[in-house]
Amino acid sequence: MTSPHTQAPAEGEAAAFAFRLEGRCRDTHARAGTFATPHGEVPTPAFMPVGTRASVKGVDPEQLERVGTRVVLANTYHLVLRPGEEAIAELGGLHRFMGWNGPILTDSGGYQVFSLGHMTKIDERGARLRSVLDGSPIEFTPERAVDVQRALGADVFMAFDHCPADPLDRASVEDATERTHRWLERCVRRYRETPTRHGPQALFAIAQGGAFEDLRRRSAEEIARHDLVGYAIGGVSVGEHKAAMDLAVRAAAPHLPEHKPRYLMGVGTPADFARSIAAGVDLFDCVTPTRHGRNHQAFVPGGRINLRNQKFARDAAPLDESCDCPTCTRFSRGYLRHLCTSGEMLAGTLLSVHNIRYFHRLMEGARAAVLAGTFAAFAARLVEADG
Amino acid sequence: MTSPHTQAPAEGEAAAFAFRLEGRCRDTHARAGTFATPHGEVPTPAFMPVGTRASVKGVDPEQLERVGTRVVLANTYHLVLRPGEEAIAELGGLHRFMGWNGPILTDSGGYQVFSLGHMTKIDERGARLRSVLDGSPIEFTPERAVDVQRALGADVFMAFDHCPADPLDRASVEDATERTHRWLERCVRRYRETPTRHGPQALFAIAQGGAFEDLRRRSAEEIARHDLVGYAIGGVSVGEHKAAMDLAVRAAAPHLPEHKPRYLMGVGTPADFARSIAAGVDLFDCVTPTRHGRNHQAFVPGGRINLRNQKFARDAAPLDESCDCPTCTRFSRGYLRHLCTSGEMLAGTLLSVHNIRYFHRLMEGARAAVLAGTFAAFAARLVEADG
Repeated sequence: MTSPHTQAPAEGEAAAFAFRLEGRCRDTHARAGTFATPHGEVPTPAFMPVGTRASVKGVDPEQLERVGTRVVLANTYHLVLRPGEEAIAELGGLHRFMGWNGPILTDSGGYQVFSLGHMTKIDERGARLRSVLDGSPIEFTPERAVDVQRALGADVFMAFDHCPADPLDRASVEDATERTHRWLERCVRRYRETPTRHGPQALFAIAQGGAFEDLRRRSAEEIARHDLVGYAIGGVSVGEHKAAMDLAVRAAAPHLPEHKPRYLMGVGTPADFARSIAAGVDLFDCVTPTRHGRNHQAFVPGGRINLRNQKFARDAAPLDESCDCPTCTRFSRGYLRHLCTSGEMLAGTLLSVHNIRYFHRLMEGARAAVLAGTFAAFAARLVEADG
Repeated sequence: MTSPHTQAPAEGEAAAFAFRLEGRCRDTHARAGTFATPHGEVPTPAFMPVGTRASVKGVDPEQLERVGTRVVLANTYHLVLRPGEEAIAELGGLHRFMGWNGPILTDSGGYQVFSLGHMTKIDERGARLRSVLDGSPIEFTPERAVDVQRALGADVFMAFDHCPADPLDRASVEDATERTHRWLERCVRRYRETPTRHGPQALFAIAQGGAFEDLRRRSAEEIARHDLVGYAIGGVSVGEHKAAMDLAVRAAAPHLPEHKPRYLMGVGTPADFARSIAAGVDLFDCVTPTRHGRNHQAFVPGGRINLRNQKFARDAAPLDESCDCPTCTRFSRGYLRHLCTSGEMLAGTLLSVHNIRYFHRLMEGARAAVLAGTFAAFAARLVEADG
């Protein structure tokens, strides 16, 4: 099925987006801003819940609105496999499909192709793999990643990048990073050549560079040569050398364009947020709130608690006394433990709702601290409490 | 732990409840009324979603309020096994425990003891069984059923009855029915002797009688000798002889006290509702909306649809064009099918929300038809559409 090409070409699409810097920390690179998109504004720093298959697991859009979600993420790779991008396009694009009228961001599939792909083969042209659902052949190229994301119609979509498998192997990291830059050229060209199918879209570039500070900085400078709406740091949640990688990433962030939003992909924990915001990052996504929620773990000040613990059986207190989420407002730890031990599906939903709210409150707190000139102390408390 | 006995004794508790008859059908026994409880009013006929383990599976209390739920049911048997009635009492009783501020009804455990019980032994004293969770011995007697439900603190609680295993075996049905009447005497005595622990409660009696019209009528007349707030018909969803049983039940309903609410336990389908309302029933409960929802089945006018069907893959229409529920307002059949085939837990929640709303709308329609004098035609259409 072909859609009518009623929208402006890509050249004019950037005008539908804006990033206003509203405050800066004097002690760190932290900033407060507002990212304006065709589907609404996102105060930053911001956390984006992940709706892998166009559904934030167990949490419906009304509940997301209730806990202050302003933008959600969906995964191109999973949606290409099922139901397919043309099914979503035919049903009106991602916003209408998933019943979410706020901003949406889609990743390009790059990370999943390399981390989840079945029999993946990569060369300069792109990546070829087999569907884990039925074994059918699938090809991802920079051009196809753009076409697919045009069909999905998210406000923001990501360039197709090559995420190095071992962030400490310098030679392969250099190869993957250089290829990512060449693929970015192809993505930008395709983006500018293709019309929108559902409304204006912004392409974000992705920097790679593994765990090497100099490669990270060079990649940040390289992708910044393209005049785009936003820029991301990818390949961070790969491998076991988390500390070295985080260091390299935080060294690179300040080298991304200052007046554009910066997005750190797939990170992470409250302490990660504090350190990365201090490095100048504005946007985050991670599956932890919902994954931990389904596993009966709740984020509370100072760490996580496991709701299956017997000690909560007659605990009348809410998960988190300071929290304003529907779960903490309405239910006791004792009830939540009962739902967890009884295998009730509501447990995963209620804990996910709380965890998402916890992450949003953390971002709201960081933003307020930047605007109040108290961010350094705010970040230090978070890092100390959370490690 | 013992709770303070600050409430009025049972004798005065009935004053906290009222049933107002507001309309009658001229062609059938159908009525429209309002059942007033300490936690709110219930317009009748009404459907009560089932929260077996103090949770309507996959649907939170806010979502229940949104679809017009006025009263929910919880299962004593399951809650005695886990977390135990004293844990719930300590956490403030069922209303606070499950975060539901509207009316709640608990069954007595009688049905589950006989249908789900492990190594159950029954005699005149009561039933002894083993916990399916840990093999520990459990005893249910009429007195203990009252005590447990005092600890839970639902607005309405049920007498402990003996539900016959084979509704067509006249001798055993007579035995079980007579025992149910003797057990009712003991329940009423215990109810009048014991103080409330959380607020005024009403005891409902249960009639048995299997598939025999004369035994059903006799049991209805027998339980009606007790001056109680309400009366129920039990043992209906047992065995395979559904048609014969339904006939007997519907013959009995009009013989329950006219100015009290009548509750048909565990029924059923839209056509069952139409026939039973026509027989003078006011209250219903059933697990079908949530069970079918989790199994990806949705109730729509004229029957049920299976959302996994390929034909819905690109269907932009809502489940039910005439429905005002959050699911039909926000999502397409194509999206719901995607959630079902992708194994997303949101599928069960969204379909359950719709199915519950479907049942509530059916009851609202029946009530409006009684008040408008058009119930006979309304019921005929339902029976014809649904079989």
